[in-house]
Amino acid sequence: MSETVVGQHHIVVIGAGAFGTALAVVMALEGRAKVTLLGRDPSLIADLKADGVHDAALPGVSLPYGLDFAFEPDVLGNADIVLFAMPSQAQADAAMAYGPYLAPEAMVVTCAKGIDRATSRLLTDLLEEKLPHHPVAVLSGPGFAMDIARGLPTAMALAASNIDMAEELARSISTRTFRLYASDDRTGVQLGGALKNVLAIACGMVEGRGLGESARAALISRGLAEMSRLVTAMGGKADTVRGLSGLGDLVLTATSHQSRNLRYGLALAHGDAAGPGSGPLVEGAFAAAVAARLAEHYGVVMPITEAVAAIIEGALDIDHAVDALMTRPITTE
Amino acid sequence: MSETVVGQHHIVVIGAGAFGTALAVVMALEGRAKVTLLGRDPSLIADLKADGVHDAALPGVSLPYGLDFAFEPDVLGNADIVLFAMPSQAQADAAMAYGPYLAPEAMVVTCAKGIDRATSRLLTDLLEEKLPHHPVAVLSGPGFAMDIARGLPTAMALAASNIDMAEELARSISTRTFRLYASDDRTGVQLGGALKNVLAIACGMVEGRGLGESARAALISRGLAEMSRLVTAMGGKADTVRGLSGLGDLVLTATSHQSRNLRYGLALAHGDAAGPGSGPLVEGAFAAAVAARLAEHYGVVMPITEAVAAIIEGALDIDHAVDALMTRPITTE
Repeated sequence: MSETVVGQHHIVVIGAGAFGTALAVVMALEGRAKVTLLGRDPSLIADLKADGVHDAALPGVSLPYGLDFAFEPDVLGNADIVLFAMPSQAQADAAMAYGPYLAPEAMVVTCAKGIDRATSRLLTDLLEEKLPHHPVAVLSGPGFAMDIARGLPTAMALAASNIDMAEELARSISTRTFRLYASDDRTGVQLGGALKNVLAIACGMVEGRGLGESARAALISRGLAEMSRLVTAMGGKADTVRGLSGLGDLVLTATSHQSRNLRYGLALAHGDAAGPGSGPLVEGAFAAAVAARLAEHYGVVMPITEAVAAIIEGALDIDHAVDALMTRPITTE
Repeated sequence: MSETVVGQHHIVVIGAGAFGTALAVVMALEGRAKVTLLGRDPSLIADLKADGVHDAALPGVSLPYGLDFAFEPDVLGNADIVLFAMPSQAQADAAMAYGPYLAPEAMVVTCAKGIDRATSRLLTDLLEEKLPHHPVAVLSGPGFAMDIARGLPTAMALAASNIDMAEELARSISTRTFRLYASDDRTGVQLGGALKNVLAIACGMVEGRGLGESARAALISRGLAEMSRLVTAMGGKADTVRGLSGLGDLVLTATSHQSRNLRYGLALAHGDAAGPGSGPLVEGAFAAAVAARLAEHYGVVMPITEAVAAIIEGALDIDHAVDALMTRPITTE
């Protein structure tokens, strides 16, 4: 157990999955803050403590000595920064469960990429409703848990409702290898993280049909253009999705077979994917339907997103979709 | 020899390399315009005519019956659209050689990605000087010649000094599979095409050093940010490089081993690359030095471009460069 130095941050990461553990590892290695990984499963936490590795999530990565572990939520009482690193659809429940233990001045950072399915709401809005006395920021962008945990150079975006807080959080969490860029656009950062999964599915389809790398590159650029249109309509900044969250994350997801969304698109192209509810969680499959609804609601043209949603629903086949996308009237960029 | 229909375009592509031939093939297949491929080597042109394939450039692709071939420049007399599809550094000479044969109303489109090395000038500026009576447009973006020629879906940008001409050219050249987006930002489209090669070298270095896909994604997003800064300083639009030329092309180049620039970066990372003059042409190696000069001239901060230029010159080693890039002060996106 490391001791808290006066003036030093105490950061608690809630969620001992791959991403949460990776964040805790990289911050603990840096050694500037006291870092605690808080999991809900006592036996997992006991194993992590005893073994010094988390083989299920981050095989081969040593958990640093300076990292503390806990399963009791009262550890939150001393934390000034709390990272919510559980899946999107578990964030609302986590806020209810852990909220009463938060220190009055604690800042909350959501680390999930998604839109709440039930309400079509952004996670920061959801958490602010559940935790009305705490500022809520969001961390998103291109970073595989293994890359972060192994200390490879990574960069992500951290957005808060005001830029001073975003910069303070970015400085507190950043390390020599894990670099955060501050933003005041929570809407853009979150939509970037959620919508890139939809485009990753489209890229998987393009790859699965053997349409070539040029087609994939075109899809990524045109997809970003439609992403920015929705972000603008929803009050965010178009530039945000052209940064780390959005573009950066899309490049990572759309060109790596580590991505579940890409593999789902490949499976759709080969005609062997069932609905998104039947296999492991594919965030983009749900996000496609939500984004298509949002596009309609805000009167935004999003032909790629709409095509992906229609293909998943079985209302459109892939070859017709490509044909329709390629033969739209010539427009300006 | 196909006959010209009244009102039909006559498009001549100068340059029977892979890219020029691919453009001629896809337009001839569409059948809306009369298309002629003009090469300077009579024996190559005779072979293409006789064999119906261009095995050296586009192995396995049939040259369509409707495509005409020529090596005599007087075929230009009937052309209203002329595509310059030779390498960047050959464009000025080609303008001098073919200029006298152009029809008075002919529109010229440069299809090379580069900056003139001798003068640090954009190719459209160079061609306008050599061909003062002709409007000069530029075609750039993500499109491998083989993908275009095989009729796979591709999308690129076409920029002219005014949007009406850009739209007219985009409509005339586009086909069902090869889709052009009009732009009035020639500066942005050209800088996007040239600078993405510099970033592709950086991506090759990151890959060669085993720094991971997250680092590459971060590099691409931060690289685009610095690209837009230079484009803005030079009078173009930041948005342009976030479209097909720039982002789209960067994604294609930085994630495909088909790219010579990426492979050059890989070689640098392994310590086995000599200077850019010693092997096959690596456009990005020259563009890095030019871009670093332009950045200094316009007072633009371009840490990645400057690092690539310094590494190529031997003034900086890769590990120090990564360290310096990752530990810069935290900024906003």
